[in-house]
Parts: sequence; C-alpha cells; structure tokens
Amino acid sequence: MSPILFKDNMPALQNKAYFNYGGQGPLPTQSLNAITSSWQTIQKLGPFTNHVWPYITKEVITTKNLIAEICSIHPKRIAFTENVTSGCVLPLLGLPFSDGDNLLLSDCEHPGIVAACKELARKKNLTIAILPVSKLCNGNDKKDETYNSVLKLIDEYLQKNTKLVVLSHLLWNTGQIMPIELISKRLKEHSSKPYLLVDAAQSFCHIPSKGACDTADIYAFTGHKWAYGPEGLGAVVLSARVLEESSPTLIGWKSLKAEEGIHINNKAPFHSDARRFEIATSCIPLLAGLRSSLAMLKNEGNETERFFKIKSLSCVLWEKLNQIKNIELVLNSPPPSGIISFTINGNHSPEEVVNYLGKENLWIRVLEDPKWLRACVHITTDSNEINNLVIGLENFISTK
Amino acid sequence: MSPILFKDNMPALQNKAYFNYGGQGPLPTQSLNAITSSWQTIQKLGPFTNHVWPYITKEVITTKNLIAEICSIHPKRIAFTENVTSGCVLPLLGLPFSDGDNLLLSDCEHPGIVAACKELARKKNLTIAILPVSKLCNGNDKKDETYNSVLKLIDEYLQKNTKLVVLSHLLWNTGQIMPIELISKRLKEHSSKPYLLVDAAQSFCHIPSKGACDTADIYAFTGHKWAYGPEGLGAVVLSARVLEESSPTLIGWKSLKAEEGIHINNKAPFHSDARRFEIATSCIPLLAGLRSSLAMLKNEGNETERFFKIKSLSCVLWEKLNQIKNIELVLNSPPPSGIISFTINGNHSPEEVVNYLGKENLWIRVLEDPKWLRACVHITTDSNEINNLVIGLENFISTK
Repeated sequence: MSPILFKDNMPALQNKAYFNYGGQGPLPTQSLNAITSSWQTIQKLGPFTNHVWPYITKEVITTKNLIAEICSIHPKRIAFTENVTSGCVLPLLGLPFSDGDNLLLSDCEHPGIVAACKELARKKNLTIAILPVSKLCNGNDKKDETYNSVLKLIDEYLQKNTKLVVLSHLLWNTGQIMPIELISKRLKEHSSKPYLLVDAAQSFCHIPSKGACDTADIYAFTGHKWAYGPEGLGAVVLSARVLEESSPTLIGWKSLKAEEGIHINNKAPFHSDARRFEIATSCIPLLAGLRSSLAMLKNEGNETERFFKIKSLSCVLWEKLNQIKNIELVLNSPPPSGIISFTINGNHSPEEVVNYLGKENLWIRVLEDPKWLRACVHITTDSNEINNLVIGLENFISTK
Repeated sequence: MSPILFKDNMPALQNKAYFNYGGQGPLPTQSLNAITSSWQTIQKLGPFTNHVWPYITKEVITTKNLIAEICSIHPKRIAFTENVTSGCVLPLLGLPFSDGDNLLLSDCEHPGIVAACKELARKKNLTIAILPVSKLCNGNDKKDETYNSVLKLIDEYLQKNTKLVVLSHLLWNTGQIMPIELISKRLKEHSSKPYLLVDAAQSFCHIPSKGACDTADIYAFTGHKWAYGPEGLGAVVLSARVLEESSPTLIGWKSLKAEEGIHINNKAPFHSDARRFEIATSCIPLLAGLRSSLAMLKNEGNETERFFKIKSLSCVLWEKLNQIKNIELVLNSPPPSGIISFTINGNHSPEEVVNYLGKENLWIRVLEDPKWLRACVHITTDSNEINNLVIGLENFISTK
C-alpha cells in the first residue's frame, strides 16, 4: 500500500486554498477515522465498565507521552483542557495573588485572555500594565534586535509588585516570536518573581517550542490549530512552581486523588501533578485524533525541517505581497513565522476583502485587535495557492 | 426502509447487559454517524472560513432549542459545558458570596461538586453545613412522605446566612428524587434567599425535569449519561437571577459580546445571557450526536411514557433483588427511578462483585460514597437482562 499523502488526506484542502491555520487547522481523514474507531472501541468494551478503563488510561498516557516528547518535558506536567483559553485561565485563577499585585500583559494577547485577566484584576483588586510589543515590526532578518527590544521592554515595564507576565510565544497578530526562555530567566532574576503565562495557541507544532514550554509557568495550546487535530482538545504544561503554589480552580473527579464524600476532611484532596487542573468527563476519542495528526506531522519532517519549510513559504508570500501597491505589511521584512498580517489601503472594510477572496475559495481572516488581515501558511501550503492568493488580492485592489 | 430499532442501534448493548446508565450511556451508531458527518461538513465548508459560521451557528441554536423544548425554558438560559461538573462549578464560582456565608450541601452530592464547594469555602472563608438526605429510604410508594421529609430537613438546616443550597435532582446513590420545585419555593421565601444549585446528572432524560429545570438557579446536566449522547458535551440552565447577579468565571471569546483588545475599557464586556459561562472553541460535531440521540429517545415515547417504562423495569429488578437473601437494598420498597443501590452481606468487597458479574458480561458499578453497588435500568433494559443480573448475583452469593 502506498503511503497516504499528507495534503491529499485533508478534505478541507481539496476545494479551497486555506490560509487560516492560526484559526483552525483542517482535520486529516485518517485522524477522523482514528476518532471514530476510538468511539467504536469504547462502545465495544462498554462505556464505564471495568474493561474500558485500561483503554482510557492508555489513551490518556500515550497522548500525554507524545506531547511530552514534542515539548521535552515530563508528562506529569501536562493537563488536558478543552481549548487554549481554559488552559491559560484555569491555572491562572489558581495562582496566589494579593491585593494590589500588578499583572503585565502584552498588547498582543487574545481578547479572551485579556478579558479573563481584567475580570481577575477586578475581583482581586489587582492592577494591569501593558507591555507594548505590537510596535515591534522587524522581520526574520532582525530577530536578535527584536529579542533585545522585548527584553528591554520587560525590564522597563516590570514593577516591584508585578506578579504575572502574560505573553504569547508567537504573537497571533504580528507573527513575531517572543524569546520566552530569555524572558523566563529575566523574571526569575527579578525581585517579585512574576509567573510567566504563555499563550502557545500559535506556536505548538508551528515553531520549535521545547525551551519555551519547559521554562514558562503556564504554557497552553490546542490541537486544533497548527497540529491539524480535532477541535475541543488542548493541553497546558505547568511548571513545578505552579504545581506547588497554585490551587485548583474548577474541580471534578479528575482533579481528585480519591472520590471522597462530604464527611471526609482531607487537607490535600487534589492530585499533586497537573491533573489537579483537569475536571471531569471529557471526550476521550479526540485523543486518538490528535495522536494521529501528530504522527502524520512527524512523517513530514522534524520540528526544525517543518519550521524551515513554513518560513520559506511565508517568505515567498511576504515578498509577493510586498510587491503589491496598496498592501501595507505589518512586518518590514519577511516574517519569522507562518503568520503574515497586513492591511489594504482604501475605502473598504477588511471583511469585504475576506468575502471577495472567499468567492475565489481563498480563505484568510480578519483579526479584531488590531483590525488587520491575516494569512497563515503551513507545510501543506503550496506555491500555487500562494500565487492564487496574490492574484486574488491584486484583483480586489484593482476593482476598488 | 424499516425504522432503526433503538437498542439494535447500540453496539455497546449487543455483547453485554449494561446497568450503568448513570455512569455513561451507550452511543447509538446513528449518533456516531451524525458526529462524523458533522465533522465532514465542517471540513468541506472549511474550518474557520466564512462558510462554516452559519453552519456552526445553526448547530448551536438547533441544539439549544431542542434542549430548551425538553426543559421548557428559554434557550438563552442555556450554556454548553464539557461535563456536569463544569456546568455546576462555572456559575457557582461566579456567585457573589461574602465572608462567613453558609453553603448547605446534601450528603448525597457527587465528590467532584463536594470538593469544589469545599475549596470555594476555603478560598472565600465560607462555612459548610450538611443536609442529611441519604437517610431517606422510602421507595416510590411513599413519595409524599419523602418530599415532606426533605422540606422539613430544609427548614431545619437553613440558617440565616445560608446563601446556597446544593442538592441533586435525582440522588446518584440512593436513587431518590428531590422535590426541586417545592424546595425552590421554600428558598425564595427564606430571609437569606439562598441560590439553588441542582446537579441534574442523573435526571436529564431519565425523569421529567421541566419544573425543576425552570425553578433551580443552576441546573447542570450532561448528554453522555441517560440521554445516550457523546461524552464531552453537557449543558447548564441558569435562572434570570444568576444571569443578573453572577460574574463569569473562566472567560474566553465565547463569553464576550465583542472581541476587544487590552486598550478598550468596557464595563460590561460579557454576554448577558448564559453564553457568559461558555469559554472558547469546543467540539462542535458533538452537538449533532446529542441531537441524534435526543431524537431517537423522543421516538421511544414521551418523557412520561419513558419514565413509566423505566420505573416498571426498576420495580421488577428491585422485587427480584428483594427475594435474594444477603442482598440489602438501600430503599425499603420499589424505587422512584431507574437507580437501584444495594450491598451484599459477607466478607468480600463490592469490587469483587463487579468483577464477578463482569465476567458474565453483566455490568453494574461500585459507588465510592457510600461504598454501595448500583444498578441502573433504562428504557433499553429488558427482562432477560434483569433475569441474568439476578442469576449472576445469586451465583456470586452462593459461591461465597
């Protein structure tokens, strides 16, 4: 049997040119089959029978081990979550904050996390400061300059009462990579020892994430974006410090060492590992789907090889877009990742652009904050699709 | 084409006699097909393209409307959750409590909810009182007596600082039904106006739930138990009062009226309806699976007809178990629901019993609190399975 070709295994990529991997990745048929097959196995063994538990335990452990290998961390540091937001916010709400503590959030965080931090600040009487990283517009060629600027900003904005820094690994709007390892080192040296919460929605299976994942306190991602996994399954990696100092937020049978009733007075009822942030019954068959997609990705090359391919493609797209009059690229040279954001001059909304391109089966997205257009290239993107997107944009501009 | 027979459509019921609907229900093949088909549709339309959003919106609205019809409430009161625990705890943590407030929990609540309430009490300096409903051991014939006893207990245990009562609609261990509507009325008349949190894990699609669902403040359930839906999808129904007085707990893009960045200072960023408790990306294809199972259930008779069938079956099982020497039934006459709990006298663990029966493909479960055996009958249970379970138990007892 000849091997299944990666792109050919994705129905979503057969009838369109897809440039929104940052929103959701397509699901390979092989991964959907793995999900369905897992459901069939559970039904055959019997849901909630003694026979099914070894299977479920194996599904959980195998998947955590695979993620642990990708992230180069111990699997006990991983909790499964429904999505990135849960992964960020569940442990965040369990951290010990005191009245007046300061939260330092970058100005490139997702509105969900921003709103959660604002609500936390309101409830616990914390203050919020803003780390202005959106202004960093270097491309891949000036990576060191960007990293130095970020570190300078960190030094400048850290206050003596800063207890948390929230910074995405890969900024969802500009496409910049943040030097998480260097920042983590800086924070550990700072007098207030702030926790580092990293939204890794855009980085997992897109850029190499080992060091960042290992050094951040909270590193949350999902399988449904760059990993080509199913929606509804993500994970968060927690530091030893968070596991020690945080208390669980939502709690259910998965958080508990033992299912104890109301008459038992246990001072330490929760798992000491990351399971303290898992809650209750979740959709087990999704695990098989994610593993299948991760295995298919691995077949396409190692982390570095894949990242190199993504950067080559985004470089091509950036160069072509840069030739188009009236397109304003956010970064001033080819980007360090597969994310390219831009605006189009003229009297029309970004939604109009997306609708126009959509009619040609070319799919990019509108970002809400700032109101930019974003095109993502992944290893499945090909030069034909890139050319068609460029033609589509040229046509839009010429008709306006 | 002849109609698909309900039980024949469930692979999980073909090779075993299943008595653990309270843990998880089997998934009909038709519902698994609906899930797979929804995934295929999303891939065809394109995940996160403009084309997919009308489909996703329709999936969400159709499913909420169907649940709203079953519960006889407005769909705006429904939030989707991953499981029952999230449904209970997400809004619970958003309620306004003050130092020293008292939480009144029944002694028949699930360990997950108990642990969440204890942790909430620890964090917010609240006290906990215990409502002793486990001692109520009447059967179906003395329903009124049970209801009166519950109301008397409520009157006795409510304190002037009680701000929350936590009581399951259908107790997962004894199988008693709680008079939620009457209790809700009582609480509204009480000076401290306690909120009423109802764990409906065992009631949704098992007993009629309209009045209870409408009058409770937080009424949380899942699709994966008595509704024969997929694991990983539940819902919570919230009262107008909770929607007004609570603040969201975990927060993500689904909770927000608009995706706003950190520079916007919006005093009311959250949806005013139940969506304020929804978080971020979840597994949309599960909705089609739940709808399919709910439609199949509807075909088997209306709520009252199905409940009558369940009660007839549980009456038969209870009567047969009552004939067996050394079986101690928890209730002293045939039960008001499909849940039957019991113990077996003698020098062996409940786990031994479950293992023994499992070898005969008869599946009941061990409860952890109290350590009882529990058998659940549903509309798919037949007298042959009941007879085999009885024989299995008799054999176990005679060999010990």
